[in-house]
Amino acid sequence: MFRINENYLKLKAGYLFPEIGRRVKAFTDANPDAQVIRLGIGDVTEPLPTAVTDAMKAAIDDLSNRDSFHGYGPEQGYSFLRDAIAAHDYQNRGVNVSADEIFVSDGSKCDTGNILDILGSDNKIAITDPVYPVYVDTNVMAGHTGPADANGRFDGLVYLPVTAENNFVADLPSESVDIIYLCYPNNPTGTVATRETLQKWVDYAQQNNSLIMYDAAYEAFISDDSIPRSIFEIEGAREVAIEFRSFSKSIGFTGVRCAFAVIPTELKVTASCGTVVSLHQLWNRRQSTKFNGASYVVQRGAAGAYTPEGRQQMKSLVDFYMTNAKLLREGLQSVGITVFGGEHAPYVWLQTPNGLSSWDFFDLLLSKGHLVGTPGSGFGAAGEGYFRLSAFNSRENVKTALERFKSVVQ
Amino acid sequence: MFRINENYLKLKAGYLFPEIGRRVKAFTDANPDAQVIRLGIGDVTEPLPTAVTDAMKAAIDDLSNRDSFHGYGPEQGYSFLRDAIAAHDYQNRGVNVSADEIFVSDGSKCDTGNILDILGSDNKIAITDPVYPVYVDTNVMAGHTGPADANGRFDGLVYLPVTAENNFVADLPSESVDIIYLCYPNNPTGTVATRETLQKWVDYAQQNNSLIMYDAAYEAFISDDSIPRSIFEIEGAREVAIEFRSFSKSIGFTGVRCAFAVIPTELKVTASCGTVVSLHQLWNRRQSTKFNGASYVVQRGAAGAYTPEGRQQMKSLVDFYMTNAKLLREGLQSVGITVFGGEHAPYVWLQTPNGLSSWDFFDLLLSKGHLVGTPGSGFGAAGEGYFRLSAFNSRENVKTALERFKSVVQ
Repeated sequence: MFRINENYLKLKAGYLFPEIGRRVKAFTDANPDAQVIRLGIGDVTEPLPTAVTDAMKAAIDDLSNRDSFHGYGPEQGYSFLRDAIAAHDYQNRGVNVSADEIFVSDGSKCDTGNILDILGSDNKIAITDPVYPVYVDTNVMAGHTGPADANGRFDGLVYLPVTAENNFVADLPSESVDIIYLCYPNNPTGTVATRETLQKWVDYAQQNNSLIMYDAAYEAFISDDSIPRSIFEIEGAREVAIEFRSFSKSIGFTGVRCAFAVIPTELKVTASCGTVVSLHQLWNRRQSTKFNGASYVVQRGAAGAYTPEGRQQMKSLVDFYMTNAKLLREGLQSVGITVFGGEHAPYVWLQTPNGLSSWDFFDLLLSKGHLVGTPGSGFGAAGEGYFRLSAFNSRENVKTALERFKSVVQ
Repeated sequence: MFRINENYLKLKAGYLFPEIGRRVKAFTDANPDAQVIRLGIGDVTEPLPTAVTDAMKAAIDDLSNRDSFHGYGPEQGYSFLRDAIAAHDYQNRGVNVSADEIFVSDGSKCDTGNILDILGSDNKIAITDPVYPVYVDTNVMAGHTGPADANGRFDGLVYLPVTAENNFVADLPSESVDIIYLCYPNNPTGTVATRETLQKWVDYAQQNNSLIMYDAAYEAFISDDSIPRSIFEIEGAREVAIEFRSFSKSIGFTGVRCAFAVIPTELKVTASCGTVVSLHQLWNRRQSTKFNGASYVVQRGAAGAYTPEGRQQMKSLVDFYMTNAKLLREGLQSVGITVFGGEHAPYVWLQTPNGLSSWDFFDLLLSKGHLVGTPGSGFGAAGEGYFRLSAFNSRENVKTALERFKSVVQ
């Protein structure tokens, strides 16, 4: 008899966003005339830049002619895109990352999940709490944890709380951990890490032979040059870190699908047989065997964002969403809500008023304000009492949402 | 210290196609004027159908306007595509598959590899030999095998030889196996399975509670209605099989990336705790957690192939390649080569002349004919003495290749 991977049975029934969807559907079914505004899931709303769409249409023309047709591409991504990424996102900023260390993919969700394929099953894994749920669930599915407790915390994971009490900077683990997930600008809290904070983590990883999974999917939203955009700006990081980046938020690619991972050639580990193994080579083998490259049309579109016109259009998109974030921050503060984030990230993280639980505040906002946000406790036990609002929306919706929010909490 | 997945160290150094690439590069470096014709890798060469490119451009226009913008799509694929697949590929042919049993993805290579995520680590796995190398390598990487022997056969896998001796129909395993990979029309042999053969496998799976992984990536090339295009044409298959299909070869999507898997709701297994688990639900959870859907633009393109115009254009593409296959078959036979396949598949499988080994024949064809094919032994030990030619090329190249082939073997 064939067997399934029974680790899946440890997963909690509802991934956060399906549960939100269920509650919103129940509400709208009962209130069909309500004009619900969704500031929950972090999904972009604005059109693609024309530098991107023009490049995608030109790519389709390439595929319409035998002489310029492209079949299977390199699993690692086309040079035209890897070179552009290396130059613009790293080398022009003085960061040492070469094109062949960049692996283009169809999404950071895939990359941060699939990377576990090349890692062992006996690593001690640390995550911050609250956290992007995919890091946790993919480790559960891979059998790296025991069952969950009543708070939804899985046995075997090391949870590092990040709350207002520690200024959203996690303490180093008191025990030695092998793998650490860090995400800056942070989802869900919208906070950022200073150079000193990241140096502390890189030093820890060097001392403990740990691996840092650095999720920089929101780096485009950083507006202050003193804040690191890449873990590879930090001394020693090339020996201990993998970085994940995405085009989803910066150029509106949540539905188009393109991202990349950076694995430096210095990142190596000694296998139990004594062989020194390069993670770059392992990931190359993984991608060559289980992936066939991102779509040619999509890669051409992403490369379009690196033209001078594309750079400018991307900046306008980011500025648009960051103005939304500023409106949200200031609007909430004006009615006495304590907010964090939203300065270098498209997420505002607020403390629920009157000590309400995250889900109770969710239900209140939905029923009284017809607003959808994301309960902080959905990102982890330490997110209880917090709530996430996304700046990804039209200006009009953000303004309307703010008025409704104020009327609910005042 | 963090640990890697050491199962990767069991993999043989060269995946087949990189080794071919290495030898071709060595030859062309030494013979820069040689006009090499590649009939090796199964990659399409002809332009995309206009019904597909028009749909993709319209999708880009959708993404260029706020009102028609699409962000994150359903991880399972858009209804417009799932509905079209269910209707045209299954229901209109009298096959019981519903739209919500279809999971759209970015490729069958990904699907056939990733499906192992939801399966246990203690299954006995059978593959035919020769076989598409991805089935083997992904199982090695997942730790489902021991090390390889001198023939490249991995300990723990059950190899079922398919050769001219058994008319390319594998015998049922003498031991009970849990998972069986079947691919029809077959890659690499180009042969097909009759209804009776598939019924025998479904009956075996029913009796042994086995799971059939049915790879039908080449079903569009079947020209005889008596040959099953889907495992779900077979009585009982909905309880024992998963089917994988791809747009790569039928509409030239090797660089565009779209495929799908079909997991019937009847496919269930009892976990060790006694819970009955639906594989459909497990895969849904896997995809929701580790995948974000295929690109909207790409899904619109695939849906374009289901319009009346698209159907006709797809048929023309398939006919074009199948005329190439017919030319190859007949041309090789005319000089006394024994050939198989190529009638309902874009691959011709030939016996090497004069008892040459597969790689010796590869080197002979390359050096004397400037032709690249694929050595049968690269697909498994039982492929030794065979050689694969792909029909994916321009008509002119196929004709030139045939003349060169004849001059080499005569």
